[in-house]
Amino acid sequence: MNENLYARKFPLPALLAVPCEAWALTDAYKIAGVDIDAGNEAVRRYQSLAAKWRHPAQLAGLGGFGGLFEMPGDPSRALAASTDGVGTKVLIASEVGRYETVGGDLVNHCVNDVLVVNADPLFFLDYLAVGKLNPDVAATIVSGVQEACRKHNCALLGGETAEMADVYDPDHFDLAGTIVGLVERAAIPNSQTVTPGDAIIGLPAIGLHTNGYTLARKLIGTDEWSTSFDGSTFADALLAEHPSYHDAVRAIQGVARVKTMAHITGGGLLENVRRTLPSNVKAIFEQSRWSVPPLIEELCRRGDLNHDERYRTFNMGIGFTLVVPLSDAQRAKDAAPGAKIIGWVEERRDDEPAVLIHPARD
Amino acid sequence: MNENLYARKFPLPALLAVPCEAWALTDAYKIAGVDIDAGNEAVRRYQSLAAKWRHPAQLAGLGGFGGLFEMPGDPSRALAASTDGVGTKVLIASEVGRYETVGGDLVNHCVNDVLVVNADPLFFLDYLAVGKLNPDVAATIVSGVQEACRKHNCALLGGETAEMADVYDPDHFDLAGTIVGLVERAAIPNSQTVTPGDAIIGLPAIGLHTNGYTLARKLIGTDEWSTSFDGSTFADALLAEHPSYHDAVRAIQGVARVKTMAHITGGGLLENVRRTLPSNVKAIFEQSRWSVPPLIEELCRRGDLNHDERYRTFNMGIGFTLVVPLSDAQRAKDAAPGAKIIGWVEERRDDEPAVLIHPARD
Repeated sequence: MNENLYARKFPLPALLAVPCEAWALTDAYKIAGVDIDAGNEAVRRYQSLAAKWRHPAQLAGLGGFGGLFEMPGDPSRALAASTDGVGTKVLIASEVGRYETVGGDLVNHCVNDVLVVNADPLFFLDYLAVGKLNPDVAATIVSGVQEACRKHNCALLGGETAEMADVYDPDHFDLAGTIVGLVERAAIPNSQTVTPGDAIIGLPAIGLHTNGYTLARKLIGTDEWSTSFDGSTFADALLAEHPSYHDAVRAIQGVARVKTMAHITGGGLLENVRRTLPSNVKAIFEQSRWSVPPLIEELCRRGDLNHDERYRTFNMGIGFTLVVPLSDAQRAKDAAPGAKIIGWVEERRDDEPAVLIHPARD
Repeated sequence: MNENLYARKFPLPALLAVPCEAWALTDAYKIAGVDIDAGNEAVRRYQSLAAKWRHPAQLAGLGGFGGLFEMPGDPSRALAASTDGVGTKVLIASEVGRYETVGGDLVNHCVNDVLVVNADPLFFLDYLAVGKLNPDVAATIVSGVQEACRKHNCALLGGETAEMADVYDPDHFDLAGTIVGLVERAAIPNSQTVTPGDAIIGLPAIGLHTNGYTLARKLIGTDEWSTSFDGSTFADALLAEHPSYHDAVRAIQGVARVKTMAHITGGGLLENVRRTLPSNVKAIFEQSRWSVPPLIEELCRRGDLNHDERYRTFNMGIGFTLVVPLSDAQRAKDAAPGAKIIGWVEERRDDEPAVLIHPARD
């Protein structure tokens, strides 16, 4: 159901290893009216395109988070880049008329994507497309982009604002952006170092972030957005800003050896963690070790989502994961606010799933 | 009328020097239903945002084509980046059902933008947003992106495909992209070297490229698209691919000293050339020296566009300009197919316009 299911992340070695038919199990997508079969087919087509030609400076990445390009003239470093959008969260922003946070959603999402390959942001460019240009709205959105860039000492190097009346409704907009970061080649995480017995640290999510909104909008009607919910309103909960995990990850890396990381976006823990593990291990999560944000609990209840649907559609309360040696786990947990030891790594047989989540007892 | 009028190209030194009210003269934009006042106001807001904070590695660019970022650890080089979209040309592609060329439109547009600062492409990332995901259509579009990247030895490093049913009509899509290139700092053109007496070389445009489509769609109805026009159809003429000027520019640079360049996009010769000239000179063009593509002639006739409207709305047959010393002009012209000496540089008084175009006699 989520647009990011279709994210192409060239190079695609990890996606190539993933049986796409797994998605077809998920009825929740059908509720939201998103065509998973078409998504799988598009990914397959992109994969064959990517297989046809590849620039020699393109490096293998980590689970498709951020493309990597060898720095010209300096093979010890690489540029990391990622393009993403805010998805249908933009519809909630425009319908509620609150434009302050979508810029932060976008930048933080992109920062987290290149953080997976350990890159620090250099610069960002945004693409804002509108039906009818309202300068106040546009400036509010771009101001949010700039503020989030500034927090990461990331230049806002450029952008495009397009008024396209017959493509977008007058009050609608779309927002996408591209981040470019830098990483020492030796510092790119190597998922092959992950071994059975390692611990998994989870960083807390504060809501849907930028995934699951097509379904969320089916389950919570516009008429309910101003309704009280969890101490504020549904609109507040739905628009909560996608956090940056930059500082938390750097703090953990200061005290622990981080072997692999994952940004939990479309596809949830089930898909995103799998993409960053070697094939001979599996990740086991104990959901009793963390709490699910009330908004996500509410959506799971309303949509009557089963276990798989929940964990593929929503982040379920975990926004970013880090695999560390067991001996470093406690230090890692203590280094970042809200961090928890949420699971561990075990040996995996070929017929076993790569990610298992033990649900909390109700 | 053209969405690219609102392009923000941070840093904005050139735009800051341009009185925005000049745009208000242009009635053609009103025909197309694009709000120029809103565009001016948005640009003004973006400028004050950009003035508030700037990353120390951001370098002054050239007329807003491509942002520049000092290469970390190597101040002799810079990364150049630009984000752009295809604009409402996407509506013609989706209504005609021809998706082969929009990828080339996008990549070539971006290549030309960073070419102005003399950068060679390193990598590209695309953003494709659709109402309903059709894998054939998506693969055709991305294949066009990849093919154009390959022609420039530019990695297609990543991309995002988003299915957003309530933002886009089922058959509609939007396409944007970001290019990152590399340039030696010493090779970035310095417009201050332009002096009276220099010649201006023009490279031929083959149609609208990616600008002026909102107006073009008002002037040529959908029912006419299959009508014969200029040896093919209106649809063929409207969808003609935005060319890359990379090879032509490199060939000219091989035989001539190129002082400044401009990519003729939204704003036409009048705006784009002005942004790349020092304030003490003006550019004089003699339109009799080149020919206007038949499609643009037809649109000017149908829209009854006056001189200013034509030259701000459409490229009028010139896609890229290069300023060279007069002594190099003939060699420059001979180095690239279709290149012409189309104008010259003169001293400018404060009360004179920066660009003057002498129309061809009818």
